[in-house]
Amino acid sequence: MRSGPALDAETILTATEDVLRRHGPAKATVLDVARALGVSHASVYRHFPSKAALREAVTRRWLGRAREDIAAVAADTRQVPPERLRTWLTTLFAAKRKLLSEDPELFATYRVLAAEHSDAAADHVTDLLEQLRVIIADGVTAGDFTCADPAATARTVFDATMAYHHPAHAPEWQAPGTEAALEAVCALLVNGLRFR
Amino acid sequence: MRSGPALDAETILTATEDVLRRHGPAKATVLDVARALGVSHASVYRHFPSKAALREAVTRRWLGRAREDIAAVAADTRQVPPERLRTWLTTLFAAKRKLLSEDPELFATYRVLAAEHSDAAADHVTDLLEQLRVIIADGVTAGDFTCADPAATARTVFDATMAYHHPAHAPEWQAPGTEAALEAVCALLVNGLRFR
Repeated sequence: MRSGPALDAETILTATEDVLRRHGPAKATVLDVARALGVSHASVYRHFPSKAALREAVTRRWLGRAREDIAAVAADTRQVPPERLRTWLTTLFAAKRKLLSEDPELFATYRVLAAEHSDAAADHVTDLLEQLRVIIADGVTAGDFTCADPAATARTVFDATMAYHHPAHAPEWQAPGTEAALEAVCALLVNGLRFR
Repeated sequence: MRSGPALDAETILTATEDVLRRHGPAKATVLDVARALGVSHASVYRHFPSKAALREAVTRRWLGRAREDIAAVAADTRQVPPERLRTWLTTLFAAKRKLLSEDPELFATYRVLAAEHSDAAADHVTDLLEQLRVIIADGVTAGDFTCADPAATARTVFDATMAYHHPAHAPEWQAPGTEAALEAVCALLVNGLRFR
């Protein structure tokens, strides 16, 4: 059994990431995590009440790491809103594809949570929708976009680009032409938003 | 063993549908189909060289049954193209959702084939894209839409409505608000196509 500094949640999450990378989401257990840390599984349960809670927390932290680049685009008011919207959607796609290629096992965990409408996946979507809403609202203020309800329109733009961020479409993301297809969807959506 | 009229491909496909409905795509075997017909499995293989070929043929026929309603909208020139595009997309969604609710096991088979990029699934998409191309080309001729390449734009509209026809999104199709969400996507796309 492990001695030394007290076990904290971050240490458990890092160990869980490693276990998920090694065993995959279907096979990884809390006991594997405890073993990797040299502690009892009760010590892990003290921080995370269930395997599901642990899996949620790992995915939440992992998705959070990709957040910075995407949020930076949403906040970059040097780009005019139509251009910022395009850059945001292509940055989101690039970030999702990078998560997939660099960490396929953790991506698989995220895909399971998205299919189960877990809190971690739902909060991730809520965060993205709010970024999108800000860009669209800025576009309305600047006179670039016409729309009555930026929050509702953010949802519509998000739905119309599902193929480029929903994990169920991940198997298609490496296909040639996917970036060009997203560019074409972005151009059509931006034209739709400009329409009056 | 069965006697009477010679075994034809249609009879085998009908029996295979029943077997798929009973056992699901993961468990259904060619032997189950042969048993249901009271023939040897060699008799089935005489018409379909493999389980994969049989599964493809069943899915192709099954998808074909939903085709008529959708194709009728594409050909209905009484509707002006912007309205026809909206009707076509909502009819396609309604048809897919009906296939799912009436025949979940055959839908699951189709979902597997779509993920595997099978010929049956690819041909289904090609057929739909051609219907969409005709509507968009009619819109360009009528002066409703601006677009240089109706076939490419058909692909873009299809990609932007993935959430409402791709089988991977089927678990979300019964959620309240899905029809309204599709209407909002359609309105944005039609505005994008009208833009000049």
